[in-house]
Amino acid sequence: MRTGFVGLGAMGQPMARNLHRAGLLAAVWNRSAAKAQAFSAETGVAAAGSLAELAEICEAVVTCVSADADVLTVTDALGASLAAGAVVMDCSTVAADTAREAAARLAAHDAEFLDCPVSGGTEGARDGTLSIMVGGEAAALQRARPVLEALGRNIVHMGPAGAGQAAKATNQIMVAGINQAVTEALAFGQAQGLPMDRLIAALEKGAAANWFLSHRGPTMVEGRYPLGFKVALHAKDLEICRRMAEADGARLPLIEMTLKHYARLLDAGSTEEDISALFRLKSDMFARGDA
Amino acid sequence: MRTGFVGLGAMGQPMARNLHRAGLLAAVWNRSAAKAQAFSAETGVAAAGSLAELAEICEAVVTCVSADADVLTVTDALGASLAAGAVVMDCSTVAADTAREAAARLAAHDAEFLDCPVSGGTEGARDGTLSIMVGGEAAALQRARPVLEALGRNIVHMGPAGAGQAAKATNQIMVAGINQAVTEALAFGQAQGLPMDRLIAALEKGAAANWFLSHRGPTMVEGRYPLGFKVALHAKDLEICRRMAEADGARLPLIEMTLKHYARLLDAGSTEEDISALFRLKSDMFARGDA
Repeated sequence: MRTGFVGLGAMGQPMARNLHRAGLLAAVWNRSAAKAQAFSAETGVAAAGSLAELAEICEAVVTCVSADADVLTVTDALGASLAAGAVVMDCSTVAADTAREAAARLAAHDAEFLDCPVSGGTEGARDGTLSIMVGGEAAALQRARPVLEALGRNIVHMGPAGAGQAAKATNQIMVAGINQAVTEALAFGQAQGLPMDRLIAALEKGAAANWFLSHRGPTMVEGRYPLGFKVALHAKDLEICRRMAEADGARLPLIEMTLKHYARLLDAGSTEEDISALFRLKSDMFARGDA
Repeated sequence: MRTGFVGLGAMGQPMARNLHRAGLLAAVWNRSAAKAQAFSAETGVAAAGSLAELAEICEAVVTCVSADADVLTVTDALGASLAAGAVVMDCSTVAADTAREAAARLAAHDAEFLDCPVSGGTEGARDGTLSIMVGGEAAALQRARPVLEALGRNIVHMGPAGAGQAAKATNQIMVAGINQAVTEALAFGQAQGLPMDRLIAALEKGAAANWFLSHRGPTMVEGRYPLGFKVALHAKDLEICRRMAEADGARLPLIEMTLKHYARLLDAGSTEEDISALFRLKSDMFARGDA
């Protein structure tokens, strides 16, 4: 399946590399052309001159961009040049409504759209172990599956267009709440004067066990917050979640609290820190008796 | 090491059974004598007529009671009759101050006290796989270790008297926050119309993976909340955490939110439900647009 890749960012670049290793990658495109040319020089994969040119030579396209508007701009630019039956898989994290809109626009060109947001971070992108939540037609997923299998291990069909993004939003809400849980608890434990390495070793074997504690706990208690997952990107995702909940007339109290805390981190300049930097804010709040 | 056991409740009874299997159990005592007599009839282990009688024949005593006052009443009643060097291991969840007070009172009788709160639930108590967080003298822990090894697999020395309870309080805060995270996220996912079994399968392989999601998620999304861990008991523990934080002049925003939610569950009659019943409250809040 001749596959194109659009968006060679922190996630996209290692994902494109895995498609190339699997012998599937026919062409790449990136908004700043220099990145696409460097990738082409290294791998021998063609750097397409435009999205239309990429669409003409591919049966499948994987996109991995940042914002809702970008997803629609890219699918519009691909649409007219895709062959009938071609499949676009969008791995960006955007609103479910955006995914449904992109699917409708591509359907007008007889092309398929699958929303395929991923979880597992840059580590999962590099190792090809991403968890992929898919929304769209089962038949299109069936055809596209070899492409997704080069990117991740756990490919779950969540339902029609938009369902993959709804599942990813659920994931981002849970990650935010777990960040709150782990950092508030460890700030308390630190204030109690406990040995933090032993504390983490005790907690990760009981009912409080979680991925974030085991993978981010040891660095956060040393005052280090290596990426990981940028605060600004998670804040963007949580704003999508807030809008999706508001559309149902509902509120997410844990997410409101987290957005307030992330805004304080970003105001203080945490642009290149992992979301586990919430631990520093919680420790400071604890020391000041603040809430 | 001739060991006595005090407090044959939901956790205590299976723990006493494991001590008996290990050949360590010399006598039991329970506030309502009928439970101790039934245990004695079944196992052949002596039911002591009083705490003093139990203390006289034991080198070690494990206590597993409910409230802070009970811990002090029981250690006072044991104190005068314990041989010098005897070790009392308290597996109750109480305030760190209570543990330090009990240690001081037993020290006056030349006996040792270890605060040994556990994590892992009735399942861990039955299987002897509890995680045990220990506060007290390292030498006393060294002597008492064979007793604790009959009860749990992960025995971590957290520091001086009270440090075990401080670690347990940290654990209870983290569990509360994770309960908030999992239930708020799954209530959102349900409102999005996602297939909940597939959603859990996708989330438990990514960065949101946690014990509570895997062990309580599948039942909560079916509207079942089997015990587990009672709402009222977790609320009691969180009130201890709140007082410990207040003593440091600090607040725990996630715990304040959880105590409010648990009070609503208890008002509605959730006395025999697991803490995962928070999912029902979150789903209702979601449906009403409430926070």
